[in-house]
Amino acid sequence: MKNTFGTSVCVTLFGESHGPAIGAVLDGLAPGIPVDEKQIARQLELRRPAGRISTARQEPDPFRIVSGVFEGKTTGTPLTLLIPNTDTRSGDYRRGALRPGHADYTAHIKYHGFEDYRGGGHFSGRITAALTAAGAVAVGALRLRGIRIGTHIARCAGIRDADFTDFEKDIDRLNEMPFAVLDEAKGAEMRAAVEQAAAEGDSVGGVLETAVTGMPAGVGEPWFDTLEGLLAHGLFAIPAVKGVEFGDGFALAEKRGSEANDAFALRQGKTVTRTNHNGGINGGISNGMPLLFRCAVKPTPSIALPQDSVNAEGTAEETLQLGGRHDPAVVHRARVVADSVTALVLCDALALRFGTDWLGGGI
Amino acid sequence: MKNTFGTSVCVTLFGESHGPAIGAVLDGLAPGIPVDEKQIARQLELRRPAGRISTARQEPDPFRIVSGVFEGKTTGTPLTLLIPNTDTRSGDYRRGALRPGHADYTAHIKYHGFEDYRGGGHFSGRITAALTAAGAVAVGALRLRGIRIGTHIARCAGIRDADFTDFEKDIDRLNEMPFAVLDEAKGAEMRAAVEQAAAEGDSVGGVLETAVTGMPAGVGEPWFDTLEGLLAHGLFAIPAVKGVEFGDGFALAEKRGSEANDAFALRQGKTVTRTNHNGGINGGISNGMPLLFRCAVKPTPSIALPQDSVNAEGTAEETLQLGGRHDPAVVHRARVVADSVTALVLCDALALRFGTDWLGGGI
Amino acid sequence: MKNTFGTSVCVTLFGESHGPAIGAVLDGLAPGIPVDEKQIARQLELRRPAGRISTARQEPDPFRIVSGVFEGKTTGTPLTLLIPNTDTRSGDYRRGALRPGHADYTAHIKYHGFEDYRGGGHFSGRITAALTAAGAVAVGALRLRGIRIGTHIARCAGIRDADFTDFEKDIDRLNEMPFAVLDEAKGAEMRAAVEQAAAEGDSVGGVLETAVTGMPAGVGEPWFDTLEGLLAHGLFAIPAVKGVEFGDGFALAEKRGSEANDAFALRQGKTVTRTNHNGGINGGISNGMPLLFRCAVKPTPSIALPQDSVNAEGTAEETLQLGGRHDPAVVHRARVVADSVTALVLCDALALRFGTDWLGGGI
Amino acid sequence: MKNTFGTSVCVTLFGESHGPAIGAVLDGLAPGIPVDEKQIARQLELRRPAGRISTARQEPDPFRIVSGVFEGKTTGTPLTLLIPNTDTRSGDYRRGALRPGHADYTAHIKYHGFEDYRGGGHFSGRITAALTAAGAVAVGALRLRGIRIGTHIARCAGIRDADFTDFEKDIDRLNEMPFAVLDEAKGAEMRAAVEQAAAEGDSVGGVLETAVTGMPAGVGEPWFDTLEGLLAHGLFAIPAVKGVEFGDGFALAEKRGSEANDAFALRQGKTVTRTNHNGGINGGISNGMPLLFRCAVKPTPSIALPQDSVNAEGTAEETLQLGGRHDPAVVHRARVVADSVTALVLCDALALRFGTDWLGGGI
Repeated sequence: MKNTFGTSVCVTLFGESHGPAIGAVLDGLAPGIPVDEKQIARQLELRRPAGRISTARQEPDPFRIVSGVFEGKTTGTPLTLLIPNTDTRSGDYRRGALRPGHADYTAHIKYHGFEDYRGGGHFSGRITAALTAAGAVAVGALRLRGIRIGTHIARCAGIRDADFTDFEKDIDRLNEMPFAVLDEAKGAEMRAAVEQAAAEGDSVGGVLETAVTGMPAGVGEPWFDTLEGLLAHGLFAIPAVKGVEFGDGFALAEKRGSEANDAFALRQGKTVTRTNHNGGINGGISNGMPLLFRCAVKPTPSIALPQDSVNAEGTAEETLQLGGRHDPAVVHRARVVADSVTALVLCDALALRFGTDWLGGGI
Repeated sequence: MKNTFGTSVCVTLFGESHGPAIGAVLDGLAPGIPVDEKQIARQLELRRPAGRISTARQEPDPFRIVSGVFEGKTTGTPLTLLIPNTDTRSGDYRRGALRPGHADYTAHIKYHGFEDYRGGGHFSGRITAALTAAGAVAVGALRLRGIRIGTHIARCAGIRDADFTDFEKDIDRLNEMPFAVLDEAKGAEMRAAVEQAAAEGDSVGGVLETAVTGMPAGVGEPWFDTLEGLLAHGLFAIPAVKGVEFGDGFALAEKRGSEANDAFALRQGKTVTRTNHNGGINGGISNGMPLLFRCAVKPTPSIALPQDSVNAEGTAEETLQLGGRHDPAVVHRARVVADSVTALVLCDALALRFGTDWLGGGI
Repeated sequence: MKNTFGTSVCVTLFGESHGPAIGAVLDGLAPGIPVDEKQIARQLELRRPAGRISTARQEPDPFRIVSGVFEGKTTGTPLTLLIPNTDTRSGDYRRGALRPGHADYTAHIKYHGFEDYRGGGHFSGRITAALTAAGAVAVGALRLRGIRIGTHIARCAGIRDADFTDFEKDIDRLNEMPFAVLDEAKGAEMRAAVEQAAAEGDSVGGVLETAVTGMPAGVGEPWFDTLEGLLAHGLFAIPAVKGVEFGDGFALAEKRGSEANDAFALRQGKTVTRTNHNGGINGGISNGMPLLFRCAVKPTPSIALPQDSVNAEGTAEETLQLGGRHDPAVVHRARVVADSVTALVLCDALALRFGTDWLGGGI
Repeated sequence: MKNTFGTSVCVTLFGESHGPAIGAVLDGLAPGIPVDEKQIARQLELRRPAGRISTARQEPDPFRIVSGVFEGKTTGTPLTLLIPNTDTRSGDYRRGALRPGHADYTAHIKYHGFEDYRGGGHFSGRITAALTAAGAVAVGALRLRGIRIGTHIARCAGIRDADFTDFEKDIDRLNEMPFAVLDEAKGAEMRAAVEQAAAEGDSVGGVLETAVTGMPAGVGEPWFDTLEGLLAHGLFAIPAVKGVEFGDGFALAEKRGSEANDAFALRQGKTVTRTNHNGGINGGISNGMPLLFRCAVKPTPSIALPQDSVNAEGTAEETLQLGGRHDPAVVHRARVVADSVTALVLCDALALRFGTDWLGGGI
């Protein structure tokens, strides 16, 4: 079940970087949800490498919906998205030395050399295009139920973005931005730092912060299927993510209880918390406040600088010198993937909680 | 499946703080694994409140193995551990104002008031005793296959412990320590800081760092069932955990690719990495280096200081003044729970990878 | 996950015939469902060996609810039922020759000899007491939503019971009968035939037919999680079941399409079918007609007659002569297990379809 | 997870009869298994309508492998098969009266009218082409490990085929036959009976019997994940299957224990059973004898005779008169689907038992 994720709403990913196509099957979504192909294209566009700070591979991601949509709406049966690989020049790749920080070595051990090694094969970041396309449908479905998801680049190359101030407005604004930051001046600094790293043959990482508004209270489970556990499980599928924290996360470890607890209050007859150090989740269950969490994205492992390595056979040490041009950062592209994973996990949790029709408006 | 976790080896938790008993069913473990009741008792002892920096509830956790062990060894069928609740004075509890930072509110919304609210009910930290007992069996099974797990308090109340130096030796030492630190002087500082917080009616949090040695390469799956995703999914079951990071985790976000990549080298004909910034995992799959990850543990939400709150009915704001004595920190108790969750997740991943007999030595 | 079954509502079984206790964890049931211990006891009573046609083991099955019920109602968190084994005389058992028709051999191969072989261990029919107890809660929950389940002994020892005539009335009547038949004269014939077989040191089998009324249309999934597939998956857990058929089942294979199709009609504005050859399920999904299905129950494998066998070590052929007294039939006891499995599967399918609160009345 | 089935090896189905394509994702298969496209084409050929006793839709099923195969062998990552729909004339279909015996009504209720109703949409038997293609890969993988699967038409239109005599030889012969029977004279009678029914505007059903040789003992689980439960769960996915029985199945209900038990014996030092009334499974676990089971296949619901029905809106009764030509029987086409489902279930059970490399020869 390794490439299938979810229980009531679930997604299956398939494909390799240099195979004929990649794709995703999104299953369990309520029937009757309008599917906006332009919205899917827009989300794919946000994931695509753009401008000077991304790689030269410029596939337009011309996806096709192969099943599950009828007369513009979800049927309730599996929705399959197929994205052909059109820009694959296999000549660019051969089984060379293991690329540090990539899955080359672990895939080689796990699949005994039978893996499609070209361009990282099934481990290629390109597969996130399929995840993004499926996620775009889920994002749209949630939006119709008043649930908004937005992610900004909270940190990149050591530069820190501003915090959310007005969640709903900020989210709407972020969702239109190719380089999603709350403070555009900081965004400009970040881009400059990325270009600087690129010029030096190196790469940078960052932190993504995701907010979700409109999430009903009472969703998530005690112990294992906590909202934190489910979201983290999904978010670690994003290739470079090495950490996930909710609310104040690791900073909570330095706080006192009196600072970390979110006091309850009544606002217009509704129980709310005055602060949101816990990121909208208590005991694994949503409390009605905005969900707030962050993903640590490591610097792109593909760099131009020479690196010490070993050949795939494990018989000789080699110096690896990657040719071509590589992303000096992926954090700005990964944010739409974070939105997608978040949407898929929440669709699943909501369908489990309120039934399979809920996302379709209760129908 | 909310209280069941795992695929081939899985654990089911049950019970409430003030019900007759709590327990766990551990299913799918290979037959023929020696079950050491003393080892289980020892792990439970490490989880129990101890000394001045923990609560007064002093239950000896007298567990019973109800099924799955025959002539001192696992049968291969479900192993059930039952821990009676002997020290429950229900008179201590009534449905009062919602405790900030706890699951009182979210449970109330989710279960519509039918939850057993006494002592947090099913959300009580006490349930981790059952998780610890089940984990102790898994820890023992892995140990027999040469896989060691150890956790230290990497940070507590702002004080930082030393790093691992010799993993195997450090792990063995940690597993004997009630307050698990690598630098005992730092441990003494931490304990003093915890006591200081307690004296002020407050509580502190911390960071746990877990290391695993002996883990074979090639375990874990691409995309969703990455070792990171599976471990994080499980680790967020630990009540106060709000963040999980692997390798250098969030610090990776500040690094350059040339600093974050782990260069490959050959050591005695074996492919290894020179550094371990990725925590022993690439592309979601173990690479044969020690696994290394950290959990952020928030400060105990139960504090003596008065807190703003609301009653369960959501009709009035109230000041909450918790009576009794509460843990000023749980990080030192949570570490054995981290070991347990880690062991359960790894047993599952190994059984999926190598078959159900593997943990029993291939039999 | 072998001993856990279900997705949203799920049950975990544990225990061995001669261990300290057996039990079940029932998880995912809506909060607020009244739990009637007398009803559980009654269902257990129906499963118990009774009178001359059952074994001498006369345990009263004094179950305990260990978790998940508070003030007489489900909490929504795991409900654990524990049934101590009080009547185990281990002296009655030793690892003798493999009993034909039992799991002795397959368990021995699978668990490499580490299985608890006493009384069949984890494969003992006794474990169905735990399944019955958990099922009783599910049966009660469905009843509150107007869904009735009833099973009769459609065939036993070659004698055929009458068919259902008035489903609801018949079901209510069956649920009170220790030997559940629609035609009591046929029931008397069956019992005589069972006693005759017993007198000859032999045993008989039978067919159980289960009906469910009040099931809403639109539950079940296309392809794999069909209602037929889910029910059959669960029903084959009943130890002696070797066949499951829906509607006219195998008899449909002999029919023409014009005879097998259930014509649609309108009754008071509602779409119904005039006949029910498909057992209330089309395309894997309930159609609002009564569910109707049958289980083939093989004759009890434990018989007094001498049998050819082999020792557990596989080194010598032996003649097996079972001592003690054994059930000459289990079909009459298995019917309440069929009700239980049916209830558990339907609770799960309904919770997935309509959300986790539905069984609690939408709350 | 409704369209995904399996745990370690799993399959996901997608597509609608009149959408652009149907397909399957097969995940979890060991790396290094040769994938023979000719074998897939051959299995698809066996499923295709052929000759006078099948429908006129003559699509050649030109499948494409979209992922998961590299240099002719499985990579270990998801293998995706896509079958374009080329012969869809949507003009042939409109949302008419509900077809009795089909999923029209239940799909309409479940999906609230948003389902793609053309040609049965996602419920079309055409989807079994995707299942067959995926199954062909699994069949081939098992074959390499010495496990053979074969199915014959045990009954059709009231005519009974001969029984298996030499399992391995019979299986090999069946796998080459378009109309798979052990006694070809009986097969000719069956075909004549099918044509007779067709001439009368009617259809017939039948019984499929599947045998599996070479299955190792000790595979399957106690209680819920019995081999019977898993196989039945999968087999009920075959559209017209309404019953599944193992070994002597329903006939066992009429037998005595002394007739139903399979006595053990030693043959060349190996424990075997003298008879195989239990179909190679005891206590849910394979015993090393051939697996043997039967599926009841109901007559094709699409018939030329007029039928009483109701419109989809549920507002008026209508007489349904199906135009076009329809399969007067599907049992001969369904048998390769039975082989496929069997192979997929066994691959999963074997991978869980012996690890993910086992099917690849242990690699």
